[in-house]
Amino acid sequence: MTTDDISTDSDWQRDDDSYELDRKLVSAILYAVDVQDRDKLIALMEPLHPADIADLLEQINAHDRARLIRLYDKEFDGDILSELDESVREEVISVLHPHVLAEAVRELESDDVVDLVEDLEEPQQEQILDALEDADRVAVEQALSYPENSAGRLMQREVVMAPEHWEVGHAIDFMRSSEDLPEQFYHVVLVDPRMHPVGNVALGKLMGAKREVPLTQIAEEEFQVIPVDQDEEDVAYAFNQYHLISAPVVDADGRLVGVITIDDAMIVLDEEHEEDILRLAGVSDESSLSDSVAATSRRRLPWLAVNMCAAICASLVISQFEETIAELVALAILMPIVASMGGNAGTQSLTVAVRALATKDLTGSNVWRVIRREVTVGMLNGLCFAIVLGLVGMLWFASPMLGVVIGTALIINMVVAGLAGTAAPVLLDRMGVDPALASGTFVTTTTDVMGFFTFLGLASVVLL
Amino acid sequence: MTTDDISTDSDWQRDDDSYELDRKLVSAILYAVDVQDRDKLIALMEPLHPADIADLLEQINAHDRARLIRLYDKEFDGDILSELDESVREEVISVLHPHVLAEAVRELESDDVVDLVEDLEEPQQEQILDALEDADRVAVEQALSYPENSAGRLMQREVVMAPEHWEVGHAIDFMRSSEDLPEQFYHVVLVDPRMHPVGNVALGKLMGAKREVPLTQIAEEEFQVIPVDQDEEDVAYAFNQYHLISAPVVDADGRLVGVITIDDAMIVLDEEHEEDILRLAGVSDESSLSDSVAATSRRRLPWLAVNMCAAICASLVISQFEETIAELVALAILMPIVASMGGNAGTQSLTVAVRALATKDLTGSNVWRVIRREVTVGMLNGLCFAIVLGLVGMLWFASPMLGVVIGTALIINMVVAGLAGTAAPVLLDRMGVDPALASGTFVTTTTDVMGFFTFLGLASVVLL
Repeated sequence: MTTDDISTDSDWQRDDDSYELDRKLVSAILYAVDVQDRDKLIALMEPLHPADIADLLEQINAHDRARLIRLYDKEFDGDILSELDESVREEVISVLHPHVLAEAVRELESDDVVDLVEDLEEPQQEQILDALEDADRVAVEQALSYPENSAGRLMQREVVMAPEHWEVGHAIDFMRSSEDLPEQFYHVVLVDPRMHPVGNVALGKLMGAKREVPLTQIAEEEFQVIPVDQDEEDVAYAFNQYHLISAPVVDADGRLVGVITIDDAMIVLDEEHEEDILRLAGVSDESSLSDSVAATSRRRLPWLAVNMCAAICASLVISQFEETIAELVALAILMPIVASMGGNAGTQSLTVAVRALATKDLTGSNVWRVIRREVTVGMLNGLCFAIVLGLVGMLWFASPMLGVVIGTALIINMVVAGLAGTAAPVLLDRMGVDPALASGTFVTTTTDVMGFFTFLGLASVVLL
Repeated sequence: MTTDDISTDSDWQRDDDSYELDRKLVSAILYAVDVQDRDKLIALMEPLHPADIADLLEQINAHDRARLIRLYDKEFDGDILSELDESVREEVISVLHPHVLAEAVRELESDDVVDLVEDLEEPQQEQILDALEDADRVAVEQALSYPENSAGRLMQREVVMAPEHWEVGHAIDFMRSSEDLPEQFYHVVLVDPRMHPVGNVALGKLMGAKREVPLTQIAEEEFQVIPVDQDEEDVAYAFNQYHLISAPVVDADGRLVGVITIDDAMIVLDEEHEEDILRLAGVSDESSLSDSVAATSRRRLPWLAVNMCAAICASLVISQFEETIAELVALAILMPIVASMGGNAGTQSLTVAVRALATKDLTGSNVWRVIRREVTVGMLNGLCFAIVLGLVGMLWFASPMLGVVIGTALIINMVVAGLAGTAAPVLLDRMGVDPALASGTFVTTTTDVMGFFTFLGLASVVLL
């Protein structure tokens, strides 16, 4: 195959509708790298969005990545760096020629540079800051002075504002005559004489209103002000809950210091989702597909170690009933069912609770009602499966009492599952710990231990 | 306590920074409902955003909900309906006085009405459509003619467009003289004579450009056109991947039919995430905290039933080794550890894969590399824990061979976990099934069965 077999028609750079990188394009690009055909590489990459190029770089291996970047050379765009996963980003920065890196960074908006450098190690951070022009460098360093994951890091400092007493005509004339409006803005922020934001006027509304209309009259109904030290998770929540497009950011005195736009909030929302879903599964949130085997392995170890300790606890419980099992091996055969059903029911309750805490649907006002509901659901479902499993136990081992024991243990364990699955994340949340982070193991350990204990304990009392 | 003890100062309607509904406010509102003090209720609710009122209604019980709605009466806003969870929404609609409902619905934009009615049962849908004015009703019915969860349902039909050959001055004059600009718009869509969108001009850019500049010159670099039948999940992906603020929607002939804005895409992204996280835990995606006990219980049953069958399979495997266990009860004590470690490792691989499929980071180009990586990680971590657990087995039961058996079984099971955890979601995705939906049980069943089988099998060969 030669790379000429592949057209560069932009129609196929992504599979239709699915936005997935086309496999043939990836092959063609790697082939161009293999034969060191720079023109072909540039032609193939040209129709790709920087976000797609970043995805491409993440999907190929480190060796191909380095060769591609070197061949692509000066074409390398700063936006690609912004879009890259953290783990690959450091590697790419170290591979880029310093001149190319400096040029790429200088193209970026200052808030993108902040996002780029905040997670880098000191030497790479310096290298990038040094490449910036003085004004940009100051802006980036100011942003970095705000706490990590705060609104201050997320905001852009360029704000279009107008005194609250202006009319539409004033605002339009002011903007039309302004030399350097920000790259992206959707609202004019109305401020009082002390620079406190008092309203947002959408550009579209401004366009549609007569010149003599006061700005306050066409200000948006929804208006939320974001404190500069607010956690970015709460910022994303506010944008999603109140359908904001942009929101002014204020310092401790309530003075306007910047503006956050919805596209940045959407990125945070997506990252928070990723964090929740990975943490619930016991995967550290830094994880990405482009991490090395060693890094991935190391990241998953702690959680597996916690799980091992939990599993050993459960085994200790079982070992208390060694003689009971020796007398009736059927117990060893059936006991994992009780533990497994409890674990599943607990995970269901837990996930619903973690999600509801994230969306602020589970609050002090309804926590008792929700716990009561989960316990009742556990009891109902426990009853259903107690009947089925009771029959299974009875028929399989021809022992009615064994059926009664497994059924009873199951009901108890599923009630415990509902209780632990809801209470654990709520308690962690109250303690200021991310409920997604630690409750998984706690809940399954509880249901394992309780499952084995109730089943084997009841059996030793009733059957022997 | 009287409701007068509680000020209506808007400072505390949400806990500072956290946006969580204040518990005292909820109590005060419920008290006002108890004493039927309508003025107080209205005063307390006045500072709340419709999204917060919806949250409040979801958090209180059905009885209080009905009484609150009846007392609130004509103040009930259409936006509250839009913000409500589906399960509560039907109940609220049935409680609302028909006149109040009709009035509330008439206030809404047509795309919000679409979102509102699409999930309702026939009679309620009719009731709401009948309340609309004829033009709105036609617009809603046209939107409903597009497939569910498609871009067509999401878009608004009002688009501000301009011929591609216009200059900035033309566009501004046209908008300034236009009588009915849409409520919300951020771009002017450039179209060719056949109504095909060819570019997006941001309002901010328009404001900052001189009158004689051609619109094409200030059109955005990022420009994505959304097909009207595209799945909303892909729409949300495109907005997130390409940082779009609004995107034109086209029909099969490529003609402009509407526009989607980022706030709608953000809602979809949030819903898709909720679906993924709940499905991974085996909770049907319709679930919400305000569902009744019976509904919740019923929704969780199928997944628990699948899990029960899986657990019985694992028990059948154990029962094959009944005699082995009878001879050496230590096996019954240790076997849950092997199964549990495999289940945990499998869940880690699975979650990473499901997430990577959702973000299109796991594609045909890198699937083999990812599977190889997960298997290698499984082997490495298996080795680590094999050593630890081998020692535990050895010391606890004073049997070096038992240590070797549990260590070997663990390595095998963790390799299987990495393989199944990655391959299962990829295969489901290829088959067009949501990978989050079914892979959980498949993976843990595999690791349970393999865990018991390798451990007990090896033990019966080596130890007896």
